[in-house]
Amino acid sequence: MITNEARQIFINIVGSDNYDDSKTGRLVYSYDATPQFQAMPDAVISPRNKEEISKIVQVCNEYNIPIVPRGSGTNLCAGTCPTEGGIVLLFKLLNKIVEIDEENLTVTVQPGVITLDLTKAVEAKGLFYPPDPSSMKISTIGGNINENSGGLRGLKYGVTRDYVIALEIVLANGEIIRTGGKLAKDVAGYDLTRLFVGSEGTLGIITEATLKLIPLPETKKTILAQYQDLEAAAKTVSKIIANKIIPTTLEFLDQPTIEAVEAFAQIGLPTDVKAILLIEQDGPEEVVTRDIDRIVEICKSEDAVSVKAAESEEEAEALRTARRSALSALARLKPTTILEDATVPRSEIAKMVKAIEEIAQKYDLRICTFGHAGDGNLHPTCLTDVRNLDEIERVEKAFEEIFAKAIDLGGTITGEHGVGVMKAPYLEMKLGAAGIDAMKAIKIGLDPNNIMNPGKVFAKDSRKRVVVSK
Amino acid sequence: MITNEARQIFINIVGSDNYDDSKTGRLVYSYDATPQFQAMPDAVISPRNKEEISKIVQVCNEYNIPIVPRGSGTNLCAGTCPTEGGIVLLFKLLNKIVEIDEENLTVTVQPGVITLDLTKAVEAKGLFYPPDPSSMKISTIGGNINENSGGLRGLKYGVTRDYVIALEIVLANGEIIRTGGKLAKDVAGYDLTRLFVGSEGTLGIITEATLKLIPLPETKKTILAQYQDLEAAAKTVSKIIANKIIPTTLEFLDQPTIEAVEAFAQIGLPTDVKAILLIEQDGPEEVVTRDIDRIVEICKSEDAVSVKAAESEEEAEALRTARRSALSALARLKPTTILEDATVPRSEIAKMVKAIEEIAQKYDLRICTFGHAGDGNLHPTCLTDVRNLDEIERVEKAFEEIFAKAIDLGGTITGEHGVGVMKAPYLEMKLGAAGIDAMKAIKIGLDPNNIMNPGKVFAKDSRKRVVVSK
Repeated sequence: MITNEARQIFINIVGSDNYDDSKTGRLVYSYDATPQFQAMPDAVISPRNKEEISKIVQVCNEYNIPIVPRGSGTNLCAGTCPTEGGIVLLFKLLNKIVEIDEENLTVTVQPGVITLDLTKAVEAKGLFYPPDPSSMKISTIGGNINENSGGLRGLKYGVTRDYVIALEIVLANGEIIRTGGKLAKDVAGYDLTRLFVGSEGTLGIITEATLKLIPLPETKKTILAQYQDLEAAAKTVSKIIANKIIPTTLEFLDQPTIEAVEAFAQIGLPTDVKAILLIEQDGPEEVVTRDIDRIVEICKSEDAVSVKAAESEEEAEALRTARRSALSALARLKPTTILEDATVPRSEIAKMVKAIEEIAQKYDLRICTFGHAGDGNLHPTCLTDVRNLDEIERVEKAFEEIFAKAIDLGGTITGEHGVGVMKAPYLEMKLGAAGIDAMKAIKIGLDPNNIMNPGKVFAKDSRKRVVVSK
Repeated sequence: MITNEARQIFINIVGSDNYDDSKTGRLVYSYDATPQFQAMPDAVISPRNKEEISKIVQVCNEYNIPIVPRGSGTNLCAGTCPTEGGIVLLFKLLNKIVEIDEENLTVTVQPGVITLDLTKAVEAKGLFYPPDPSSMKISTIGGNINENSGGLRGLKYGVTRDYVIALEIVLANGEIIRTGGKLAKDVAGYDLTRLFVGSEGTLGIITEATLKLIPLPETKKTILAQYQDLEAAAKTVSKIIANKIIPTTLEFLDQPTIEAVEAFAQIGLPTDVKAILLIEQDGPEEVVTRDIDRIVEICKSEDAVSVKAAESEEEAEALRTARRSALSALARLKPTTILEDATVPRSEIAKMVKAIEEIAQKYDLRICTFGHAGDGNLHPTCLTDVRNLDEIERVEKAFEEIFAKAIDLGGTITGEHGVGVMKAPYLEMKLGAAGIDAMKAIKIGLDPNNIMNPGKVFAKDSRKRVVVSK
């Protein structure tokens, strides 16, 4: 709840244009891309600069008001759902690319910059920002940093964390700090930069970031391999890596996903095969050609029924776009789509895919699986309906088993989507009580009043995936 | 101080063979590679497993005994000098390579493994662990992780942090946790893995680590470029990067360093030039050849007086070894060698080298400069004598100015050596009071009794570089 007094202070800070507590305004920000979670914020604030954010944080401390920093809300862990009310902080006025530094190969941005805009801006200068979450067309870089987003190129190039080298942060006490720099090497104290990457807005508010760039790869090639056997596809993945080839992208789609994607994108994907691998390599021409030739051989040796190279960049881009649309495509089939993020060491992909199939059968559910096979990051996706309470209960049990299996195989409960509210009850499966206690000690140390995105990462109780009342 | 009671408990835990409180035993571990720091520990303990370490930590908490975890003590920030007494914890019995996983491209090691042994073991399988601190022949991987060591290949491949993907840690409360996994993507909660990398043993004790490996580059080429003008050498560095070539190694040595290294290594380095660049590229044959050809052109266009390719791997290795021996070579010239670690964005290398020269002149000191020019990580090295108190005072003032200049140019007070005791008084220059407070909140949260390597990272007072009484 925001008192009239606090309300007036907020308006004095940001101006009345940038403070919205209308019912409509609040409703818009009462949910994010995560199904089953909705809660009304008390107000939506769009600060114009870090000084305003610092003041807002101080007011929130004084009046004990939760702050939920939010980019485009494309996250899938309810990380930006204001489950405890308070203010949603928008970055639409902090959306500048501050600098592209070609000498140091860095780009400095405000958090509200759209990921794809950043990508295009640096590519125009022959530079490359590799992280490419599927939501990159609408996600913001601030959201990517808070969630440590992954993407299709994670296998070869790593994730958002691997490119964040400096941050400007408004801490929970309102102090503004800068971490890191345009530096490949910096060991001055604890690595606050990486601690804040992926901390989901629970430790402070990122107001500027400097990202490492690399030279844009000279060329790129894309192939599509088709399989009548899931295991053969999974074995292909392992064999490529074991042959010491690290492709840029190594994506897996099972038959139901292919069917949905093809119905959605209509680019001529084969809908009669059990699985496809979408494989890309980038780099210098000679190397790409050599790697792709070897990959084609490996696919064939592992019983691919067809291996086809994209004949043009347009065709390749169509394939990539189709893959990125998997969630949207599946979401059309049933009222509720729950996309998960279980991740295993890549050697365990075949076992994990098989386990997901068995668990889906056991609980009589429709689970499609696709994802970043090369880095073991799978997205089992359940097509369901939140109004079917009996089925939703089975969904919950099935995913709990899927997470347990992932952990059992040396994996994790979330590879790139974050914990948020949704995964919080499962976090102990991965970290144990002692691991969670260590994280809590950091949270309490940096945000003693628990105003920074409260209720995220740490579970309040054992409540799991249930329908949240609206 | 260790009471008789605590002493007996320690002996019961590790056995009397692994507990040493003899004067000789303690003296050996009273210092590390950092000049001017020495302090006697109360005992030296060599645990045999993590369970023993957990018990030791619990005893230390109960009896308020400082713990200083130590690998080979090659650090240059007094990070392993037991300045507050207590126990030095050795990892000589935890020195196994646990597993090389060729399917997932990982290696799992105990902390006491020597870095070079690890490197050789994985290279025998065609895999590559890039971090290569100059001390790698004797340093341990545990020490590398605690200090987040860099090295000659940092420019292209990053530092230790970029390869640590999972840790087993004994926390300050004695709990044993596991972070991360054999996973390219893992966002289950805060990034404890990277928080512990570079935390200098102040947050917990690392008992096992899983490191990411990459395929061993197919080939490598090495060239030596000579300059009669420091600025031309520095400009070459910027121009190579601006041409979107990222060499593996781009090392800079000034004339006094070259002279000392040549006297030491006798491999025929030119001692009559103002600076040399040692440049290496690795990767597929075609790419290396193309990059090296372009680098040679760039060197010549920037007035290199000579550019010479190593004619064999032996010759290249001799050059690398010579570069790695710079500290040893310089250390022979005067009783005390203070090697520093100021780091700037690579675009500022020329300004920084010039500033160091001017500061050395101003304070009438002999400062040689060499380092990893490609990533802006310079090692200005002062040849002095701790017994000359007047000169040491000037050394202190000179380095303070060097750090201030580095910060001013967007750099940091330490690129790869860590803070330890030595840099602690300067840390605020980089982070500000608010940044240090944030780090202290983490420290207090995770180690409330301050038993984990106390006195490191955080300065007790404004005492700077002074001779510590023995």
